[in-house]
Amino acid sequence: MDYSERVPDAVVRRLPGYYRHLRELETAGLMRLSSRALGERMGLTASQIRQDINYFGDFGQQGYGYHVPSLRRCIGQILGVDREHRMVIAGAGSIGTAVARYPAFQADGFRLVALFDIDERRIGMTIAGAPVLHIDDMKHFLPGKDIEILVLATPPGCAQQIVDVAAAYGIRAVWNFVPIDLSVQESIELANVRLTDSLFALSFRLHEREVRAQTNPAWVKESE
Amino acid sequence: MDYSERVPDAVVRRLPGYYRHLRELETAGLMRLSSRALGERMGLTASQIRQDINYFGDFGQQGYGYHVPSLRRCIGQILGVDREHRMVIAGAGSIGTAVARYPAFQADGFRLVALFDIDERRIGMTIAGAPVLHIDDMKHFLPGKDIEILVLATPPGCAQQIVDVAAAYGIRAVWNFVPIDLSVQESIELANVRLTDSLFALSFRLHEREVRAQTNPAWVKESE
Repeated sequence: MDYSERVPDAVVRRLPGYYRHLRELETAGLMRLSSRALGERMGLTASQIRQDINYFGDFGQQGYGYHVPSLRRCIGQILGVDREHRMVIAGAGSIGTAVARYPAFQADGFRLVALFDIDERRIGMTIAGAPVLHIDDMKHFLPGKDIEILVLATPPGCAQQIVDVAAAYGIRAVWNFVPIDLSVQESIELANVRLTDSLFALSFRLHEREVRAQTNPAWVKESE
Repeated sequence: MDYSERVPDAVVRRLPGYYRHLRELETAGLMRLSSRALGERMGLTASQIRQDINYFGDFGQQGYGYHVPSLRRCIGQILGVDREHRMVIAGAGSIGTAVARYPAFQADGFRLVALFDIDERRIGMTIAGAPVLHIDDMKHFLPGKDIEILVLATPPGCAQQIVDVAAAYGIRAVWNFVPIDLSVQESIELANVRLTDSLFALSFRLHEREVRAQTNPAWVKESE
Protein backbone atom coordinates (compact mmCIF):
# COMPACT_ATOMS: atom_id res chain seq x y z
CA MET A 1 0.00 0.00 0.00
CA ASP A 2 1.14 3.50 -0.86
CA TYR A 3 0.81 5.85 2.10
CA SER A 4 2.36 8.86 0.38
CA GLU A 5 -1.05 10.48 0.19
CA ARG A 6 -3.58 10.55 2.97
CA VAL A 7 -6.32 8.03 2.20
CA PRO A 8 -9.66 9.85 1.71
CA ASP A 9 -11.92 10.01 4.76
CA ALA A 10 -14.76 8.37 2.84
CA VAL A 11 -12.66 5.25 2.25
CA VAL A 12 -11.32 5.17 5.81
CA ARG A 13 -14.88 5.48 7.07
CA ARG A 14 -15.86 2.29 5.21
CA LEU A 15 -12.75 0.31 6.15
CA PRO A 16 -13.90 -0.72 9.66
CA GLY A 17 -17.15 -1.98 8.11
CA TYR A 18 -15.18 -4.21 5.75
CA TYR A 19 -13.22 -5.58 8.67
CA ARG A 20 -16.36 -6.20 10.75
CA HIS A 21 -18.23 -7.98 7.94
CA LEU A 22 -15.24 -10.03 6.85
CA ARG A 23 -14.62 -11.16 10.40
CA GLU A 24 -18.24 -12.26 10.73
CA LEU A 25 -18.01 -14.15 7.44
CA GLU A 26 -14.71 -15.74 8.42
CA THR A 27 -16.17 -16.85 11.77
CA ALA A 28 -19.08 -18.36 9.84
CA GLY A 29 -16.55 -20.39 7.85
CA LEU A 30 -16.88 -18.65 4.48
CA MET A 31 -13.68 -18.82 2.40
CA ARG A 32 -14.44 -16.98 -0.86
CA LEU A 33 -16.69 -14.03 -1.55
CA SER A 34 -17.50 -12.00 -4.66
CA SER A 35 -17.46 -8.21 -4.60
CA ARG A 36 -21.17 -8.36 -5.43
CA ALA A 37 -22.02 -10.52 -2.40
CA LEU A 38 -19.92 -8.32 -0.10
CA GLY A 39 -21.56 -5.24 -1.62
CA GLU A 40 -25.06 -6.55 -1.00
CA ARG A 41 -24.17 -7.22 2.60
CA MET A 42 -22.72 -3.74 3.08
CA GLY A 43 -25.19 -1.74 1.00
CA LEU A 44 -22.56 -0.80 -1.61
CA THR A 45 -22.21 -1.59 -5.31
CA ALA A 46 -19.74 -4.24 -6.46
CA SER A 47 -17.74 -1.55 -8.24
CA GLN A 48 -17.47 0.56 -5.08
CA ILE A 49 -16.20 -2.50 -3.23
CA ARG A 50 -13.58 -3.22 -5.90
CA GLN A 51 -12.47 0.42 -5.98
CA ASP A 52 -12.11 0.64 -2.20
CA ILE A 53 -10.23 -2.62 -1.88
CA ASN A 54 -7.95 -1.90 -4.83
CA TYR A 55 -6.89 1.18 -2.90
CA PHE A 56 -5.06 -1.08 -0.49
CA GLY A 57 -3.59 -3.64 -2.84
CA ASP A 58 -4.46 -6.44 -5.23
CA PHE A 59 -6.58 -8.91 -3.27
CA GLY A 60 -8.98 -10.44 -5.80
CA GLN A 61 -8.57 -12.93 -8.60
CA GLN A 62 -10.85 -12.26 -11.55
CA GLY A 63 -13.72 -14.72 -11.37
CA TYR A 64 -12.70 -16.18 -8.02
CA GLY A 65 -13.68 -13.37 -5.68
CA TYR A 66 -11.81 -12.50 -2.51
CA HIS A 67 -10.18 -14.97 -0.15
CA VAL A 68 -12.02 -14.01 3.05
CA PRO A 69 -9.35 -14.85 5.69
CA SER A 70 -6.53 -13.15 3.73
CA LEU A 71 -8.55 -10.03 3.03
CA ARG A 72 -9.71 -9.85 6.65
CA ARG A 73 -6.12 -10.21 7.88
CA CYS A 74 -4.79 -7.59 5.48
CA ILE A 75 -7.48 -5.07 6.36
CA GLY A 76 -6.79 -5.79 10.03
CA GLN A 77 -3.13 -4.96 9.45
CA ILE A 78 -4.04 -1.81 7.55
CA LEU A 79 -6.32 -0.78 10.40
CA GLY A 80 -3.54 -1.54 12.87
CA VAL A 81 -5.81 -3.83 14.91
CA ASP A 82 -3.30 -6.69 14.69
CA ARG A 83 -1.23 -5.05 17.42
CA GLU A 84 -1.94 -3.63 20.87
CA HIS A 85 -3.11 -0.06 21.37
CA ARG A 86 -2.87 1.14 24.94
CA MET A 87 -5.35 3.76 26.03
CA VAL A 88 -6.44 5.83 29.01
CA ILE A 89 -9.80 7.48 29.61
CA ALA A 90 -10.10 10.97 31.08
CA GLY A 91 -13.47 11.25 32.83
CA ALA A 92 -14.95 8.22 34.60
CA GLY A 93 -18.58 9.43 34.38
CA SER A 94 -21.35 7.83 32.31
CA ILE A 95 -19.61 8.08 28.94
CA GLY A 96 -16.15 7.15 30.21
CA THR A 97 -17.55 4.13 32.02
CA ALA A 98 -19.60 3.04 29.00
CA VAL A 99 -16.52 3.21 26.77
CA ALA A 100 -14.44 1.31 29.34
CA ARG A 101 -17.00 -1.48 29.48
CA TYR A 102 -17.65 -1.67 25.75
CA PRO A 103 -16.89 -5.34 25.13
CA ALA A 104 -15.71 -5.14 21.53
CA PHE A 105 -12.52 -3.17 22.22
CA GLN A 106 -10.44 -5.67 24.14
CA ALA A 107 -10.92 -8.30 21.43
CA ASP A 108 -9.32 -5.99 18.87
CA GLY A 109 -6.18 -5.14 20.77
CA PHE A 110 -7.37 -1.95 22.45
CA ARG A 111 -6.19 -2.16 26.02
CA LEU A 112 -7.51 0.19 28.70
CA VAL A 113 -4.71 0.93 31.16
CA ALA A 114 -6.29 3.51 33.47
CA LEU A 115 -9.10 6.03 33.90
CA PHE A 116 -8.67 9.50 35.37
CA ASP A 117 -11.20 11.60 37.23
CA ILE A 118 -11.45 14.44 39.71
CA ASP A 119 -14.28 13.00 41.83
CA GLU A 120 -12.87 11.54 45.06
CA ARG A 121 -15.73 9.00 45.19
CA ARG A 122 -14.58 7.45 41.93
CA ILE A 123 -10.83 7.48 42.57
CA GLY A 124 -9.62 4.07 43.71
CA MET A 125 -12.44 2.25 41.92
CA THR A 126 -11.75 -0.38 39.27
CA ILE A 127 -13.72 -0.13 36.01
CA ALA A 128 -13.40 -2.88 33.40
CA GLY A 129 -10.24 -4.05 35.15
CA ALA A 130 -8.52 -0.65 35.10
CA PRO A 131 -7.93 1.66 38.08
CA VAL A 132 -9.49 5.13 38.41
CA LEU A 133 -6.72 7.60 39.31
CA HIS A 134 -6.75 11.32 40.08
CA ILE A 135 -6.55 13.50 36.98
CA ASP A 136 -3.63 15.43 38.52
CA ASP A 137 -1.62 12.20 38.49
CA MET A 138 -1.99 11.75 34.72
CA LYS A 139 1.26 13.58 33.96
CA HIS A 140 3.17 11.32 36.36
CA PHE A 141 1.43 8.21 35.07
CA LEU A 142 1.89 8.64 31.31
CA PRO A 143 5.70 8.71 30.86
CA GLY A 144 7.15 5.33 29.89
CA LYS A 145 3.74 3.63 29.68
CA ASP A 146 3.52 3.79 25.88
CA ILE A 147 -0.07 5.04 25.94
CA GLU A 148 -1.20 5.90 22.41
CA ILE A 149 -4.82 6.94 22.80
CA LEU A 150 -6.52 9.37 25.16
CA VAL A 151 -10.29 8.84 25.35
CA LEU A 152 -11.77 12.18 26.34
CA ALA A 153 -15.04 12.06 28.30
CA THR A 154 -14.72 14.98 30.73
CA PRO A 155 -16.97 18.02 31.21
CA PRO A 156 -16.40 20.52 28.36
CA GLY A 157 -14.75 23.12 30.59
CA CYS A 158 -11.58 21.15 31.35
CA ALA A 159 -11.29 19.09 28.14
CA GLN A 160 -8.76 21.25 26.26
CA GLN A 161 -6.45 21.55 29.26
CA ILE A 162 -6.40 17.77 29.76
CA VAL A 163 -5.64 17.21 26.06
CA ASP A 164 -2.75 19.68 26.28
CA VAL A 165 -1.25 17.85 29.27
CA ALA A 166 -1.68 14.43 27.65
CA ALA A 167 -0.12 15.75 24.41
CA ALA A 168 2.88 17.10 26.31
CA TYR A 169 3.36 13.66 27.86
CA GLY A 170 3.38 11.68 24.64
CA ILE A 171 -0.23 10.78 23.72
CA ARG A 172 -0.54 10.26 19.94
CA ALA A 173 -4.30 10.22 19.40
CA VAL A 174 -7.42 11.66 21.01
CA TRP A 175 -10.81 9.94 20.78
CA ASN A 176 -13.08 12.77 21.80
CA PHE A 177 -16.61 12.36 23.17
CA VAL A 178 -16.85 15.94 24.47
CA PRO A 179 -19.07 18.13 22.24
CA ILE A 180 -16.51 20.90 21.71
CA ASP A 181 -13.92 21.69 19.04
CA LEU A 182 -10.51 20.80 20.42
CA SER A 183 -7.31 22.19 19.06
CA VAL A 184 -4.45 19.71 18.86
CA GLN A 185 -1.00 19.90 17.33
CA GLU A 186 -0.41 18.42 13.87
CA SER A 187 1.33 15.34 15.28
CA ILE A 188 -1.81 14.17 17.10
CA GLU A 189 -4.70 12.34 15.44
CA LEU A 190 -8.09 13.56 16.58
CA ALA A 191 -11.37 11.69 16.08
CA ASN A 192 -14.56 13.32 17.33
CA VAL A 193 -17.57 11.21 18.27
CA ARG A 194 -20.54 13.55 17.92
CA LEU A 195 -23.46 11.67 19.40
CA THR A 196 -25.86 14.53 18.71
CA ASP A 197 -24.85 14.61 15.03
CA SER A 198 -25.95 11.03 14.61
CA LEU A 199 -29.25 11.71 16.38
CA PHE A 200 -29.80 14.90 14.34
CA ALA A 201 -29.30 12.93 11.13
CA LEU A 202 -31.95 10.46 12.31
CA SER A 203 -34.30 13.33 13.11
CA PHE A 204 -33.66 14.72 9.61
CA ARG A 205 -34.58 11.41 7.98
CA LEU A 206 -37.83 11.31 9.98
CA HIS A 207 -38.64 14.85 8.92
CA GLU A 208 -37.77 14.07 5.29
CA ARG A 209 -40.21 11.13 5.34
CA GLU A 210 -43.01 13.27 6.75
CA VAL A 211 -42.58 16.00 4.15
CA ARG A 212 -42.46 13.39 1.40
CA ALA A 213 -45.59 11.70 2.69
CA GLN A 214 -47.41 15.04 2.68
CA THR A 215 -46.29 16.14 -0.78
CA ASN A 216 -46.39 12.74 -2.43
CA PRO A 217 -48.67 10.28 -0.62
CA ALA A 218 -48.01 7.65 -3.30
CA TRP A 219 -44.42 7.38 -2.10
CA VAL A 220 -45.58 6.17 1.29
CA LYS A 221 -47.90 3.58 -0.18
CA GLU A 222 -45.21 2.28 -2.48
CA SER A 223 -42.80 1.58 0.34
CA GLU A 224 -45.36 -0.14 2.53
CA MET B 1 -36.81 22.28 -0.24
CA ASP B 2 -37.52 19.43 -2.61
CA TYR B 3 -37.82 16.12 -0.81
CA SER B 4 -38.74 14.08 -3.87
CA GLU B 5 -35.30 12.47 -3.82
CA ARG B 6 -33.53 11.21 -0.74
CA VAL B 7 -30.81 13.69 0.21
CA PRO B 8 -27.37 12.03 -0.11
CA ASP B 9 -25.92 10.61 3.09
CA ALA B 10 -22.76 12.70 2.70
CA VAL B 11 -24.82 15.91 2.86
CA VAL B 12 -26.98 14.69 5.74
CA ARG B 13 -23.83 13.75 7.60
CA ARG B 14 -22.57 17.35 7.39
CA LEU B 15 -25.92 18.98 8.24
CA PRO B 16 -25.70 18.53 12.04
CA GLY B 17 -22.24 20.11 11.93
CA TYR B 18 -23.69 23.17 10.22
CA TYR B 19 -26.35 23.43 12.87
CA ARG B 20 -23.84 23.05 15.70
CA HIS B 21 -21.43 25.65 14.33
CA LEU B 22 -24.18 28.12 13.42
CA ARG B 23 -25.68 27.84 16.88
CA GLU B 24 -22.31 28.54 18.46
CA LEU B 25 -21.82 31.56 16.18
CA GLU B 26 -25.34 32.83 16.89
CA THR B 27 -24.77 32.47 20.63
CA ALA B 28 -21.55 34.45 20.20
CA GLY B 29 -23.63 37.23 18.59
CA LEU B 30 -22.41 36.90 14.98
CA MET B 31 -25.02 38.02 12.43
CA ARG B 32 -23.40 37.52 9.01
CA LEU B 33 -20.93 34.95 7.80
CA SER B 34 -19.30 34.21 4.44
CA SER B 35 -19.18 30.69 3.04
CA ARG B 36 -15.38 30.97 3.25
CA ALA B 37 -15.39 31.76 6.97
CA LEU B 38 -17.87 28.96 7.68
CA GLY B 39 -15.77 26.61 5.55
CA GLU B 40 -12.59 27.42 7.46
CA ARG B 41 -14.36 26.71 10.71
CA MET B 42 -15.70 23.40 9.47
CA GLY B 43 -12.72 22.20 7.44
CA LEU B 44 -14.59 22.46 4.11
CA THR B 45 -14.08 24.61 1.03
CA ALA B 46 -16.32 27.63 0.41
CA SER B 47 -17.71 25.93 -2.68
CA GLN B 48 -18.65 22.77 -0.73
CA ILE B 49 -20.46 24.96 1.78
CA ARG B 50 -22.38 26.78 -0.97
CA GLN B 51 -23.28 23.50 -2.68
CA ASP B 52 -24.51 21.89 0.52
CA ILE B 53 -26.57 24.87 1.61
CA ASN B 54 -28.03 25.43 -1.87
CA TYR B 55 -29.38 21.91 -1.56
CA PHE B 56 -31.85 23.17 1.00
CA GLY B 57 -32.83 26.50 -0.48
CA ASP B 58 -31.53 29.95 -1.33
CA PHE B 59 -30.09 31.38 1.88
CA GLY B 60 -27.20 33.61 0.79
CA GLN B 61 -27.04 37.00 -0.86
CA GLN B 62 -24.09 37.39 -3.20
CA GLY B 63 -21.48 39.49 -1.43
CA TYR B 64 -23.32 39.58 1.89
CA GLY B 65 -22.82 36.06 3.13
CA TYR B 66 -25.36 34.14 5.17
CA HIS B 67 -27.60 35.61 7.85
CA VAL B 68 -26.57 33.42 10.77
CA PRO B 69 -29.83 33.31 12.80
CA SER B 70 -32.01 32.62 9.72
CA LEU B 71 -29.72 29.92 8.40
CA ARG B 72 -29.48 28.32 11.82
CA ARG B 73 -33.27 28.36 12.21
CA CYS B 74 -33.85 26.92 8.73
CA ILE B 75 -31.33 24.14 9.21
CA GLY B 76 -32.93 23.43 12.59
CA GLN B 77 -36.30 23.07 10.86
CA ILE B 78 -34.81 20.84 8.17
CA LEU B 79 -33.23 18.68 10.89
CA GLY B 80 -36.57 18.59 12.70
CA VAL B 81 -34.98 19.79 15.95
CA ASP B 82 -37.50 22.64 16.24
CA ARG B 83 -40.09 20.18 17.56
CA GLU B 84 -40.17 17.53 20.26
CA HIS B 85 -38.96 13.97 19.62
CA ARG B 86 -40.00 11.52 22.29
CA MET B 87 -37.72 8.57 22.84
CA VAL B 88 -37.30 5.47 24.99
CA ILE B 89 -34.10 3.55 25.71
CA ALA B 90 -34.00 -0.25 25.76
CA GLY B 91 -31.13 -1.34 28.01
CA ALA B 92 -30.27 0.69 31.11
CA GLY B 93 -26.65 -0.50 31.33
CA SER B 94 -23.54 1.63 30.77
CA ILE B 95 -24.39 2.78 27.24
CA GLY B 96 -28.10 3.31 27.90
CA THR B 97 -27.32 5.34 31.01
CA ALA B 98 -24.67 7.40 29.22
CA VAL B 99 -27.10 8.25 26.42
CA ALA B 100 -29.84 9.12 28.94
CA ARG B 101 -27.51 11.52 30.75
CA TYR B 102 -25.99 13.10 27.65
CA PRO B 103 -26.76 16.75 28.32
CA ALA B 104 -27.02 18.00 24.73
CA PHE B 105 -30.19 16.07 23.82
CA GLN B 106 -32.80 17.73 25.99
CA ALA B 107 -31.82 21.17 24.71
CA ASP B 108 -32.64 20.11 21.15
CA GLY B 109 -36.10 18.75 21.76
CA PHE B 110 -35.19 15.10 22.34
CA ARG B 111 -37.21 13.99 25.32
CA LEU B 112 -36.47 10.75 27.12
CA VAL B 113 -39.74 9.26 28.37
CA ALA B 114 -38.63 5.90 29.83
CA LEU B 115 -35.89 3.27 29.91
CA PHE B 116 -36.50 -0.47 29.80
CA ASP B 117 -34.37 -3.25 31.26
CA ILE B 118 -34.61 -6.83 32.45
CA ASP B 119 -32.42 -6.47 35.56
CA GLU B 120 -34.65 -6.27 38.66
CA ARG B 121 -32.04 -4.13 40.43
CA ARG B 122 -32.43 -1.39 37.84
CA ILE B 123 -36.23 -1.49 37.51
CA GLY B 124 -37.83 1.30 39.53
CA MET B 125 -34.75 3.52 39.31
CA THR B 126 -34.91 7.00 37.80
CA ILE B 127 -32.21 7.92 35.28
CA ALA B 128 -32.03 11.47 33.92
CA GLY B 129 -35.56 12.05 35.16
CA ALA B 130 -37.05 9.00 33.42
CA PRO B 131 -38.23 5.77 35.04
CA VAL B 132 -36.63 2.37 34.38
CA LEU B 133 -39.42 -0.12 33.57
CA HIS B 134 -39.39 -3.86 32.85
CA ILE B 135 -38.74 -4.67 29.19
CA ASP B 136 -41.84 -6.90 29.13
CA ASP B 137 -43.95 -3.81 29.85
CA MET B 138 -42.70 -1.97 26.75
CA LYS B 139 -45.57 -3.21 24.59
CA HIS B 140 -48.12 -1.95 27.13
CA PHE B 141 -46.26 1.33 27.59
CA LEU B 142 -45.78 2.39 23.94
CA PRO B 143 -49.36 2.67 22.61
CA GLY B 144 -50.70 6.23 22.70
CA LYS B 145 -47.43 7.73 23.97
CA ASP B 146 -46.30 9.03 20.58
CA ILE B 147 -42.76 7.68 21.02
CA GLU B 148 -40.77 8.18 17.82
CA ILE B 149 -37.30 6.90 18.63
CA LEU B 150 -36.11 3.67 20.22
CA VAL B 151 -32.54 3.90 21.50
CA LEU B 152 -31.17 0.38 21.47
CA ALA B 153 -28.49 -0.43 24.05
CA THR B 154 -29.24 -4.03 25.02
CA PRO B 155 -27.03 -7.13 24.82
CA PRO B 156 -26.78 -8.33 21.18
CA GLY B 157 -28.79 -11.50 21.79
CA CYS B 158 -32.13 -9.82 22.46
CA ALA B 159 -31.75 -6.67 20.31
CA GLN B 160 -33.64 -7.83 17.20
CA GLN B 161 -36.58 -9.13 19.21
CA ILE B 162 -36.94 -5.83 21.08
CA VAL B 163 -36.81 -3.86 17.83
CA ASP B 164 -39.55 -6.08 16.37
CA VAL B 165 -41.80 -5.47 19.37
CA ALA B 166 -41.17 -1.72 19.34
CA ALA B 167 -41.85 -1.61 15.58
CA ALA B 168 -45.13 -3.45 16.03
CA TYR B 169 -46.14 -0.83 18.61
CA GLY B 170 -45.46 2.22 16.47
CA ILE B 171 -41.80 3.23 16.86
CA ARG B 172 -40.61 5.15 13.77
CA ALA B 173 -36.82 5.21 14.22
CA VAL B 174 -34.13 3.11 15.86
CA TRP B 175 -30.88 4.60 17.12
CA ASN B 176 -28.79 1.49 17.50
CA PHE B 177 -25.70 1.18 19.74
CA VAL B 178 -25.61 -2.63 19.58
CA PRO B 179 -22.82 -3.92 17.28
CA ILE B 180 -25.06 -6.15 15.14
CA ASP B 181 -26.89 -5.73 11.83
CA LEU B 182 -30.57 -5.26 12.58
CA SER B 183 -33.28 -5.86 10.05
CA VAL B 184 -36.12 -3.35 10.14
CA GLN B 185 -39.07 -2.79 7.85
CA GLU B 186 -38.89 -0.07 5.21
CA SER B 187 -41.05 2.32 7.22
CA ILE B 188 -38.51 2.56 10.05
CA GLU B 189 -35.40 4.74 9.97
CA LEU B 190 -32.32 3.01 11.34
CA ALA B 191 -29.12 4.76 12.41
CA ASN B 192 -26.24 2.64 13.67
CA VAL B 193 -23.64 4.07 16.03
CA ARG B 194 -20.57 1.89 15.54
CA LEU B 195 -18.19 2.92 18.31
CA THR B 196 -15.56 0.43 17.18
CA ASP B 197 -15.65 1.80 13.62
CA SER B 198 -14.65 5.22 14.89
CA LEU B 199 -11.85 3.74 17.01
CA PHE B 200 -10.67 1.55 14.10
CA ALA B 201 -10.48 4.62 11.87
CA LEU B 202 -8.32 6.32 14.51
CA SER B 203 -6.10 3.26 14.68
CA PHE B 204 -5.79 3.35 10.88
CA ARG B 205 -4.67 6.99 10.91
CA LEU B 206 -2.00 6.15 13.54
CA HIS B 207 -0.79 3.23 11.43
CA GLU B 208 -0.78 5.40 8.28
CA ARG B 209 1.42 7.97 10.05
CA GLU B 210 3.90 5.31 11.16
CA VAL B 211 4.26 3.82 7.70
CA ARG B 212 4.69 7.28 6.24
CA ALA B 213 7.32 8.20 8.81
CA GLN B 214 9.26 5.03 7.98
CA THR B 215 9.12 5.42 4.21
CA ASN B 216 9.46 9.18 4.13
CA PRO B 217 11.08 10.60 7.27
CA ALA B 218 10.96 14.11 5.77
CA TRP B 219 7.20 14.06 6.01
CA VAL B 220 7.41 13.82 9.79
CA LYS B 221 9.86 16.69 10.08
CA GLU B 222 7.73 18.90 7.88
CA SER B 223 4.68 18.54 10.05
CA GLU B 224 6.47 19.09 13.32
